[in-house]
Amino acid sequence: MNKNSSNIMALAPNTPNKKETVCIFGTGDFGRALGHKIIQAGYPVVFGSRSTQTSSLIPKDAEVLSHAEAAQKAAIIIMAIQRQHYNFLTPLAEMLHGKVLVDVSNNLKINQYPESNAEYLAQLVPGAKVVKAFNTVSAWALQSGTLDASRQVFVCGDDMGAKQMVMDIVRALGLTPLDQGSLLAAQEIENYPLQLFPMWKFPILLSLGLTTFFFFYCLTRDVIYPYVYENKDFSFFIVISIPNRICPILALILLALVYFPGVLAAIIQLYRGTKYLRFPDWLDKWMLCRKQLGLVALAFASLHVLYTLVIPIRSFVRWRISSQIISQALNNKTEPLNTTNAWLSDSYLALGILGFFLFVLLGITSLPSVSNNVNWREFRFVQSKLGYLTLILCTAHTLVYGGKRFLSPLSYRWYLPNAYMLSLIVPCIVLVVKFVLVFPCLDKPLTRIRQGWERNPQYSE
Amino acid sequence: MNKNSSNIMALAPNTPNKKETVCIFGTGDFGRALGHKIIQAGYPVVFGSRSTQTSSLIPKDAEVLSHAEAAQKAAIIIMAIQRQHYNFLTPLAEMLHGKVLVDVSNNLKINQYPESNAEYLAQLVPGAKVVKAFNTVSAWALQSGTLDASRQVFVCGDDMGAKQMVMDIVRALGLTPLDQGSLLAAQEIENYPLQLFPMWKFPILLSLGLTTFFFFYCLTRDVIYPYVYENKDFSFFIVISIPNRICPILALILLALVYFPGVLAAIIQLYRGTKYLRFPDWLDKWMLCRKQLGLVALAFASLHVLYTLVIPIRSFVRWRISSQIISQALNNKTEPLNTTNAWLSDSYLALGILGFFLFVLLGITSLPSVSNNVNWREFRFVQSKLGYLTLILCTAHTLVYGGKRFLSPLSYRWYLPNAYMLSLIVPCIVLVVKFVLVFPCLDKPLTRIRQGWERNPQYSE
Amino acid sequence: MNKNSSNIMALAPNTPNKKETVCIFGTGDFGRALGHKIIQAGYPVVFGSRSTQTSSLIPKDAEVLSHAEAAQKAAIIIMAIQRQHYNFLTPLAEMLHGKVLVDVSNNLKINQYPESNAEYLAQLVPGAKVVKAFNTVSAWALQSGTLDASRQVFVCGDDMGAKQMVMDIVRALGLTPLDQGSLLAAQEIENYPLQLFPMWKFPILLSLGLTTFFFFYCLTRDVIYPYVYENKDFSFFIVISIPNRICPILALILLALVYFPGVLAAIIQLYRGTKYLRFPDWLDKWMLCRKQLGLVALAFASLHVLYTLVIPIRSFVRWRISSQIISQALNNKTEPLNTTNAWLSDSYLALGILGFFLFVLLGITSLPSVSNNVNWREFRFVQSKLGYLTLILCTAHTLVYGGKRFLSPLSYRWYLPNAYMLSLIVPCIVLVVKFVLVFPCLDKPLTRIRQGWERNPQYSE
Repeated sequence: MNKNSSNIMALAPNTPNKKETVCIFGTGDFGRALGHKIIQAGYPVVFGSRSTQTSSLIPKDAEVLSHAEAAQKAAIIIMAIQRQHYNFLTPLAEMLHGKVLVDVSNNLKINQYPESNAEYLAQLVPGAKVVKAFNTVSAWALQSGTLDASRQVFVCGDDMGAKQMVMDIVRALGLTPLDQGSLLAAQEIENYPLQLFPMWKFPILLSLGLTTFFFFYCLTRDVIYPYVYENKDFSFFIVISIPNRICPILALILLALVYFPGVLAAIIQLYRGTKYLRFPDWLDKWMLCRKQLGLVALAFASLHVLYTLVIPIRSFVRWRISSQIISQALNNKTEPLNTTNAWLSDSYLALGILGFFLFVLLGITSLPSVSNNVNWREFRFVQSKLGYLTLILCTAHTLVYGGKRFLSPLSYRWYLPNAYMLSLIVPCIVLVVKFVLVFPCLDKPLTRIRQGWERNPQYSE
Repeated sequence: MNKNSSNIMALAPNTPNKKETVCIFGTGDFGRALGHKIIQAGYPVVFGSRSTQTSSLIPKDAEVLSHAEAAQKAAIIIMAIQRQHYNFLTPLAEMLHGKVLVDVSNNLKINQYPESNAEYLAQLVPGAKVVKAFNTVSAWALQSGTLDASRQVFVCGDDMGAKQMVMDIVRALGLTPLDQGSLLAAQEIENYPLQLFPMWKFPILLSLGLTTFFFFYCLTRDVIYPYVYENKDFSFFIVISIPNRICPILALILLALVYFPGVLAAIIQLYRGTKYLRFPDWLDKWMLCRKQLGLVALAFASLHVLYTLVIPIRSFVRWRISSQIISQALNNKTEPLNTTNAWLSDSYLALGILGFFLFVLLGITSLPSVSNNVNWREFRFVQSKLGYLTLILCTAHTLVYGGKRFLSPLSYRWYLPNAYMLSLIVPCIVLVVKFVLVFPCLDKPLTRIRQGWERNPQYSE
Repeated sequence: MNKNSSNIMALAPNTPNKKETVCIFGTGDFGRALGHKIIQAGYPVVFGSRSTQTSSLIPKDAEVLSHAEAAQKAAIIIMAIQRQHYNFLTPLAEMLHGKVLVDVSNNLKINQYPESNAEYLAQLVPGAKVVKAFNTVSAWALQSGTLDASRQVFVCGDDMGAKQMVMDIVRALGLTPLDQGSLLAAQEIENYPLQLFPMWKFPILLSLGLTTFFFFYCLTRDVIYPYVYENKDFSFFIVISIPNRICPILALILLALVYFPGVLAAIIQLYRGTKYLRFPDWLDKWMLCRKQLGLVALAFASLHVLYTLVIPIRSFVRWRISSQIISQALNNKTEPLNTTNAWLSDSYLALGILGFFLFVLLGITSLPSVSNNVNWREFRFVQSKLGYLTLILCTAHTLVYGGKRFLSPLSYRWYLPNAYMLSLIVPCIVLVVKFVLVFPCLDKPLTRIRQGWERNPQYSE
């Protein structure tokens, strides 16, 4: 098989049962793992290496040749070498003319180099067709076959035919190629595997901070205070009772923070009289992590539900209830039904149930496969209308829970109000401002501004 | 840059770092928003407008030219104008020959015009390559960057190369292009953003109607009757007790309605002896919204579970239980364990738990990403076998719940039976008919009919 | 319309409103159903059949011709006939040259023939462009319009243009084409619709076996033992109490079995000093069904949660609690709060809640649409870090639940320990081994081995 024929064959997809030789430059771990897999998929593989001695680690069925010899055998060459060694390719540039070079490299840091590795490769070997692929797959995953995670392989490149050849190999390995467009996408593809939930950092740090604050707040009020004044040991409250105070508080505050930037943005736009000025940076960032804020809030709400539902099987609660009943029985008295209490208790439970139910619905619609199946109008309806309804129900749940205790002096210990009162501040602000914004005198100009109208057209420049 | 070279370059994707000029006709809100975004993505942008004066609203880096001048600068022209103004393009037809025209327009109503806007554009400018895209994206979403919703952009068009160019721009904006095929898909793409959960209308209206009916039914039996005859104020029942009667009733009825059209269809096919006659229209529509009916039923079932699990922490329930215990203690009597009651109580709870568990499983498999990963055989197995098992368990749950009360005269107030008895009518009909259909004497001909056999071949024409 | 012109037109996608004739060979059920649908989508359809008499079952708007005549009318021919009749095509080979042949056939068994039906077709008619498609769609689904299941149609073929034509028809029918690459993928596509949850078989059989074992184990200890020694009838325990013992046991064991193969693999690699030797087959298979094992475990955990939360509304539990309270009241004694009990009870509940919460999180991230949106690093973080945390929490939940009863002789009946003690064996082994593996003296060489290092390079060959 000479160089020309192999090139031609590779580009002619009409030879179904004969697969093209694939060349891999580099016999490191990733190169070998990929080689193994490609051989299993039925492709002949040649390795290009500095030392042409067959190592025992290299798949048996693969040939090991010098870089130049190996390159001649195949129309497609996978670069399983690190970016800092790419310059050895410069003398080979002539020979690589017209070949498909697959850049599989990753960096150690996000945006480590000014240009992506794939673009750097394209500059070094101008005549080659560079395709970025496989960088999101780990050698370990390839070898162990445990591809439980994403089977998606991002592919980008400027030459459609070259991309097609690479995508066929990806499919042959049982993976799913995703065409990400031209080589300009390489930078983003190279950054992708280095991320660790970047959008989740702020919501998680914020909720950790708030959790710590409210933990010590509740500890002071509910454990230390009774210990100091009544010498009662309620230390076991830190296991369920205090978490079950913190969770609803955080759920409510975080849910309100999801809708806070929206009303802030509306105020800013009304004040400026235009939508063509950028929001401050912090507001932009806040708006972008609203989905994550909402999901963290949902997690706290779910924990609150679980903690609440186990209340009747807690040993402490059973003891307290039976003590009350026994003391009533011993005192020979039966209480009549207090209808007001029944109303209050049932109302806050029902509000909580409905609020949680809508919250879960919001969570389900934010699943990627669900939100991809609704259009913009439907998404707005769910996230905005149902979202505000959820916030209203959850706020009402907390207000009714407070009930008559709001103004009772007994609920202040060391001048500290009940923790749930603090949690009401943000949601009440959001709801009041939103309520004001719904009035036509504010809603009308806002709608016009969002449709492109400007109060002072000369103002924006 | 003259007209010819720009055309050639645009079609040659081998110039990685140099992006093609994009022309936008129309300086309205959407045109400007899209222009901003495209400039941010690194493309040069020219606007084509009637008045060539640069407005302060137009992105600074963009040129504003006459339509003809602007069109010459680019190979791709985005039509950010409304359909009713398209006719100004007729004199420019010569100049637009071979250009890629991107139709981004939407209508105000579904199927407003006989042909889609994109097809109309293609008729007006016959030499151009028309591509439909971007109509599912809102100007507001583009500007605020809050693309939490679907990032999918439907693209269709008859020219593969033109479609490719548009899809590259879509990707550069951080959106996901979805190739929907030829320009014939434009009508559907234009209707898409106008929909608001069309398949959900019937299930939601039906459940609202049933909810209203059962609310007043239960109100009469459980609140008004005791008030009239025993002068007891159980008005707080409308908060939890009555919803917790309505939810399971609706869940059961709606779940049965999911499987009703299937048995109806089988009866119709058996009667007609062929599957080649269309079903009546109402049956077709009913069959198409079965998934939505099932999900609404699941929502009611989930609410029922939540309402049931909070029972022990309701103030009324605690009062009732402690009253009973106290009166027993005061009367100095201890009841022995009633094993029959324990059996009944545990059985209906267990049946309910298993039914709900399978119901949630059904719901999970109906998530788009899950149902896309199962084949037809697996989907049938889950939705049909597990579905009927769920219906059987839920019906049995209700029957056992009724237990001995079914025939007790005490459960009839004002001749009204308990509400849950009414809820058993539909599921029992479905289960009995399905049970009859499983017999070989009916199952065999049905299977043959569904494989294409006809009893009276001449009958069908 | 003569043969040549039809061929040319079919390959020219620039004729938007005129759809190409589609030819269907075979007038069986699937052929007719597909024909109906394609006619509805606006394509002219001709049928090729041995007998050219129009049957009443064939759609009215379609022509029925001989195979040769029909083939001449269209550039695309759908083969709605069974593989064993393909050989009638041999004499037509000349006429089918250059046509697009769509193989829609399925087999009765997985890997029934050495080569796929589509490849066999390509061998029989070498000049034709064979495309595999539509085999995952059932005739029944096409006719009844109830495409609730996957709308995905896998398409593969060696000719890009031919594939494109078929994918356009797929889209016109309202289905989603998925390009699976070259014709080599046909074998897998043909096997796909025959599968019934192949990866779930082992987890489900294993859990059925364990369920049976633990059911009789618990029956002996909790129902038969008290009946024999105390003559108490606790037969109703088999409805809720015993399932609520079995579910957590199975959840814990199966969860531990998810992480067991990982530590086994690490031990094997450390022992061998290389990662380049294949694992034993059983370990490979075990590793591949870990996701399914985990989801089955999650199902049991969810049932355990539901069974636990209904405890306070069980008739038996209410009777037991009120008996205790009444006897205390009658004996005129009040117990003080036992803080140790409160701590133990709250701790095991809280550990269970947190463990279940993380378990659900793991389950959500294993949804296809979610795991496709996280990168490898994020997936590893969730499935490994959070997974072990879940296992630790659930094991601790069981340990604390046991509490003081572990060494009490009362918990041994007929020398049988409590069932939950048995469930702790596997998770404790996994956690201890994992804990040992985390020590640097073992972790370091393991990391090096997984990066490709070998202790005895000559050993591996």
